[in-house]
Amino acid sequence: MTFETVHVGLVGREYDVLIGPDLIATAGARIADMLTVKKVAIVTDENVAGLHLATLQASLDAAGVAHSALTLPAGESTKRWPEFTKTVEWLLEQKVERNGLVIALGGGVIGDLVGFAASVLRRGVRFVQIPTSLLAQVDSSVGGKTGINTDQGKNLVGAFHQPSLVLADTSILSTLTERDFLAGYGEVVKYGLLGDAAFFDWLEVNAPKMAAGDMDARVYAVKRSVEMKAEIVMRDETEQGDRALLNLGHTFCHALEKATGYSDRLLHGEGVAIGCALAFELSSRMGLCSQEDPSRVRAHLREMGMKTDVTDIPGDLPDAEALLTLMGQDKKVLDGKLRFILARGIGQAFVTSDVPREAVLSVLNDALRG
Amino acid sequence: MTFETVHVGLVGREYDVLIGPDLIATAGARIADMLTVKKVAIVTDENVAGLHLATLQASLDAAGVAHSALTLPAGESTKRWPEFTKTVEWLLEQKVERNGLVIALGGGVIGDLVGFAASVLRRGVRFVQIPTSLLAQVDSSVGGKTGINTDQGKNLVGAFHQPSLVLADTSILSTLTERDFLAGYGEVVKYGLLGDAAFFDWLEVNAPKMAAGDMDARVYAVKRSVEMKAEIVMRDETEQGDRALLNLGHTFCHALEKATGYSDRLLHGEGVAIGCALAFELSSRMGLCSQEDPSRVRAHLREMGMKTDVTDIPGDLPDAEALLTLMGQDKKVLDGKLRFILARGIGQAFVTSDVPREAVLSVLNDALRG
Repeated sequence: MTFETVHVGLVGREYDVLIGPDLIATAGARIADMLTVKKVAIVTDENVAGLHLATLQASLDAAGVAHSALTLPAGESTKRWPEFTKTVEWLLEQKVERNGLVIALGGGVIGDLVGFAASVLRRGVRFVQIPTSLLAQVDSSVGGKTGINTDQGKNLVGAFHQPSLVLADTSILSTLTERDFLAGYGEVVKYGLLGDAAFFDWLEVNAPKMAAGDMDARVYAVKRSVEMKAEIVMRDETEQGDRALLNLGHTFCHALEKATGYSDRLLHGEGVAIGCALAFELSSRMGLCSQEDPSRVRAHLREMGMKTDVTDIPGDLPDAEALLTLMGQDKKVLDGKLRFILARGIGQAFVTSDVPREAVLSVLNDALRG
Repeated sequence: MTFETVHVGLVGREYDVLIGPDLIATAGARIADMLTVKKVAIVTDENVAGLHLATLQASLDAAGVAHSALTLPAGESTKRWPEFTKTVEWLLEQKVERNGLVIALGGGVIGDLVGFAASVLRRGVRFVQIPTSLLAQVDSSVGGKTGINTDQGKNLVGAFHQPSLVLADTSILSTLTERDFLAGYGEVVKYGLLGDAAFFDWLEVNAPKMAAGDMDARVYAVKRSVEMKAEIVMRDETEQGDRALLNLGHTFCHALEKATGYSDRLLHGEGVAIGCALAFELSSRMGLCSQEDPSRVRAHLREMGMKTDVTDIPGDLPDAEALLTLMGQDKKVLDGKLRFILARGIGQAFVTSDVPREAVLSVLNDALRG
């Protein structure tokens, strides 16, 4: 089976996202073509290293590309200052030069961390994203947002730094746990909800077989998601306007992730799915979309066996007021006003700062009560 | 006395550098014009805070701009990970938003550190440079190079992030020690040497009175330096080519700074002056420029009472081989080759990787012997 290509046409920073099976096993020759000095530095995590590092290394060996690898602990807590500074210093020790190349082999945590490290190394070196989770393939590996978390919030420190190539190997999706797969699917469904009702229709029909392993369905779903993200990023690279649409569900999600300490209680993609359902609920209550829309969103998430409601999060949560305060520390705040992504229907999201505080509190209160 | 303006016309990232007396005392109104929310965060160091912070704060108060300030320890050792992460987290705690503004009040260390912090804060917020040393006014505050030092070398971690406004207040030059003034002058003389023989002629005549306090001479020297830097940065923002000319003297300088531990034994501008003299010596020995050129460079530095030769650095230095190895860790290395800035005469510098190792060693050996 061959692969699909989505071109991200940012002038001066353009790159291709390749989507298809076996792209890690064939990465070496493609990466060799990008190098004058045949040498790369790979950063990955412990889980991914066990599954995919040897495949990548063998492919680089076959292409005559020398390589060294840094393996970090797996998990969101890696995406913080200590592992960031460690990664940057390790890359300096590998003598990665200005025209050198760094490979980020892993999920969103590795992609965000390593992309940020590449952006500050010698004020910017190239990096290749090899996203090994569904979430990273459809979201974090495209668009150049990199960064780390701090005590003050998620992704508040980082850079816009576009990759030079993205290899979304759909074979590796079969190595994911069901939970991780479905968390990633939360971002896939987001694309239908924010801007493509026909894609949401397609997902209602095809997502169950995609989850069951159908490769054609997987390639199509990843490709359509990447296409939509690329289109939006090309319109608005640094999020002055339209790019905020990609944050559908994220203002709620960030507050829930903060409330659960970015822990195993709630994966990012799970929070996005719940957040999308809440955004449609809020839109419906504000009379922006029909009452059927939030019900249809929730029904699809339920059918996929996903976390759908706030009450699906195990353990205690803060009250509605406290969650609203947590939203205020999100970096999407502008002049002290919260920005929300709401929708006039499935596939019709828009950005607004004009949301009554009481409406948000009412949605949160009802959601917490279940 | 009024001020001069140099416009840095980088498309989408353009800004003005204002040069003249009393610009700190009048900063408030200019900064207020840049803000929708009338609030800024100031980062400075202990030395500068004692001299200039109250003046800036009074000016902001008068313009109705709220402000908070972080005062860091003075000195090059502040430009490292711990103070960097502290600064970023402090800015987050001040809730500096995406369209907020950070003021860097200080010399090159503060400018580089705070500019880098602003570049990663919410993936980039605006900052105003108020350079309080001669070196910062003519060099580090213009052009958007920001960064910190690590164990692996100087400025190996950072970002290209242009300021939104630079206020080069020439009144404050009278608060500098003679040593700091002359170190900054090392960068001024560099501009004449690299690209403007007439400016070097002017400096030979006027630099003594500039050092003695003549304000017109100071404004002219800073303006001409900033103009030259701005012209080169506009041609080559991210140092793919011509911008490297600004590194005249710097390959030698970085090795000497590393050998002296970035300590008080050798200030950056002192290293640049010595490095320029060495670059002309190397150029002369390679038959690129006349034998008179290095003599003329050294004579001017001597006349100004500056460190001129390697032997002017107090204490022991490593041998020539060791210094050459230190040069190899500079970030200007490309595909393993050292790049040098050499000259075909005063005002005629060029970039080359074609320098015999033996020629460099010979210059260093003779310089170490004095």
